[in-house]
Amino acid sequence: MTITPKSIWTDVVAIREQAPLIHNITNYVVMNTTANALLALGASPVMAHALPEVVQMVDIAGALVINIGTLSDAWITAMEVAAGKAKERSIPIILDPVGSGATDYRTRSARNLAERYRPAIIRGNGSEIISLCRAEVRTKGVDSTDSSDTALDAARTLNRQLGSVVCITGATDYVVGGPELHVLANGHPMMTRVTGLGCTASALCGAFAAVNPHLDQAAAHAMAVMGIAGELAARKAAGPGSLQLAFIDSLYLITEEDIEELFKSGREVV
Amino acid sequence: MTITPKSIWTDVVAIREQAPLIHNITNYVVMNTTANALLALGASPVMAHALPEVVQMVDIAGALVINIGTLSDAWITAMEVAAGKAKERSIPIILDPVGSGATDYRTRSARNLAERYRPAIIRGNGSEIISLCRAEVRTKGVDSTDSSDTALDAARTLNRQLGSVVCITGATDYVVGGPELHVLANGHPMMTRVTGLGCTASALCGAFAAVNPHLDQAAAHAMAVMGIAGELAARKAAGPGSLQLAFIDSLYLITEEDIEELFKSGREVV
Amino acid sequence: MTITPKSIWTDVVAIREQAPLIHNITNYVVMNTTANALLALGASPVMAHALPEVVQMVDIAGALVINIGTLSDAWITAMEVAAGKAKERSIPIILDPVGSGATDYRTRSARNLAERYRPAIIRGNGSEIISLCRAEVRTKGVDSTDSSDTALDAARTLNRQLGSVVCITGATDYVVGGPELHVLANGHPMMTRVTGLGCTASALCGAFAAVNPHLDQAAAHAMAVMGIAGELAARKAAGPGSLQLAFIDSLYLITEEDIEELFKSGREVV
Repeated sequence: MTITPKSIWTDVVAIREQAPLIHNITNYVVMNTTANALLALGASPVMAHALPEVVQMVDIAGALVINIGTLSDAWITAMEVAAGKAKERSIPIILDPVGSGATDYRTRSARNLAERYRPAIIRGNGSEIISLCRAEVRTKGVDSTDSSDTALDAARTLNRQLGSVVCITGATDYVVGGPELHVLANGHPMMTRVTGLGCTASALCGAFAAVNPHLDQAAAHAMAVMGIAGELAARKAAGPGSLQLAFIDSLYLITEEDIEELFKSGREVV
Repeated sequence: MTITPKSIWTDVVAIREQAPLIHNITNYVVMNTTANALLALGASPVMAHALPEVVQMVDIAGALVINIGTLSDAWITAMEVAAGKAKERSIPIILDPVGSGATDYRTRSARNLAERYRPAIIRGNGSEIISLCRAEVRTKGVDSTDSSDTALDAARTLNRQLGSVVCITGATDYVVGGPELHVLANGHPMMTRVTGLGCTASALCGAFAAVNPHLDQAAAHAMAVMGIAGELAARKAAGPGSLQLAFIDSLYLITEEDIEELFKSGREVV
Repeated sequence: MTITPKSIWTDVVAIREQAPLIHNITNYVVMNTTANALLALGASPVMAHALPEVVQMVDIAGALVINIGTLSDAWITAMEVAAGKAKERSIPIILDPVGSGATDYRTRSARNLAERYRPAIIRGNGSEIISLCRAEVRTKGVDSTDSSDTALDAARTLNRQLGSVVCITGATDYVVGGPELHVLANGHPMMTRVTGLGCTASALCGAFAAVNPHLDQAAAHAMAVMGIAGELAARKAAGPGSLQLAFIDSLYLITEEDIEELFKSGREVV
């Protein structure tokens, strides 16, 4: 599925009309900003992690977003139970392996979630995606130390093994798993100075996947909207504090014209 | 007690002068914005949930706000212990049954807290309030699917059964439990696109209840100030990102003149 | 070490160039704003609290910031294990005893962490610092009720007993532990109406201590940058909501000229 301003806009309209319920089991750092991003775009977020309720919450959700940013054992258990129910219901699971590679605990937890529940979409930076495939890589905290390009092989391997669409984000974003590789080139450097925008990207994958069954296209649309909203926000922002809020405003205000004006697809690498 | 700009302003001044300590056991999503809203209005927030300290924290608080937004068993236990101490000290308990009706766990927990500790004020959207009364209702996540009007019967029943003032928020806000029904009509539609403003409304109920023993009036004042601050903020906001921060600014800047200009009481239904 | 605009700027440049990884075990209320402040300044934040990973995370960090703002037993254990590893690696530990004095649980936990792990820097308001020394003081929630001045004796005692640099923040900030007392006079009153700026101050101590081995100077530089960024932000802020984001922008935009223009050292008390 080719990505065009038209195809992006169709999904944005669908999200605004359907307001899909996105169930997030995510980290403490980004819960507020993730919920606000989903609300601003038009989706309906819920955050719930307690074992006694995750099954019932997944039961009314349109997508499940699992993010291991501040993981602990109790949360991992809830993620597994929720993921099991999401598979049963065939709603898309999005996995964000935050900091995978930085500690064995994160790598092991992320791999386990990826391999057992074969998410619809896995979204991470280059280091995180590589860490899901092989043991040699150690990321520096939660920030990426590998370029998106070198992570492409890892993404293709993961896609072959798990069937998951794999989305690598960085200065250029790549989406592996559809008939063609999607290369997205929107975004603004100052976005790397705002915490949790990667987590937001994963949450938006959930919103797009809830309305679009072509998962590679859904992920690419999410990345395009992230990047375009970031560029719109950067026009009004003096620094990362004002960028964070202007980004939320942009998700709310984004128009088809904005997308037509700013959408930048990269060259399509083999 | 009739609600007038004068009565609202008297309480705002009292909060600014007394800076009551409001103890919040609330959800991860809104802790930051709730604390900031209380600080901006002039109250003094504290967030504490550990069993070994909640009793002592309640002991120095002017009100206890319990919010089940990201509940889990350990937190429920702490809420119960804190609520027991608050009853003993006769300080007002505010209950926010976030998402009650969406899962059995939330409904059960919210009902248990309501029935055992008979909060001074229960504040929720229509679906949540209805869910506290009867089993047939299922909300969609944490967003309301019932209009405030249809929830009025549920609120009256709860008030009769528990003695709690019940506050239903939506496009129009209702406060049940005083000699007359309060109907508040302030607010702005964009407020529904900011996460956690319902939680903020409950926290502000705590601040007003800490300085005003007429609990129905305290709840109505809190709703009026929420709505007026939201309208003031909407004048300056481009979208929900800037609305969130302008709302905090408005709580800090609000004047008696703002309240006189904007306060809108609805018709008073029987 | 005397504090000058030049010495402050040297550290800011070092943080921007080295982007030290700062491991935070901190409270739920401030995780987002703390991460954003560190990112805006140029450091690289990570939040991780799970027992199975804290040792490995400390192993790649340049400083460990421990903040007891929403403490519970499981987190205290993780803090202790992380602190033990930080001592072993000789990376600086920063302790923020949020609300120590308000409940016995906080006081006991903060004293235990201070006495067992002898942090490089302890930063708190006057009440918190006093509570670490003697039992008679009870703070009102997490806000200070003692002036910074009266806490100086407590800071000197703590410094003698533990060897820690002790930083007392308030309208005037004091740093005890170097050859001379540092007295810093930057800041803006509206900063007290934004939640978690004290926590941010502690996190910035971590960033400065990661690049500057003179810990008293590092703490004083952090306080100066906090205060100057707050003053720059206050120029653009209408209230505490816009102050919070303008403060983040200011950390990102701060220049040597800003520091030269605004730096205010207080008189140096004996």
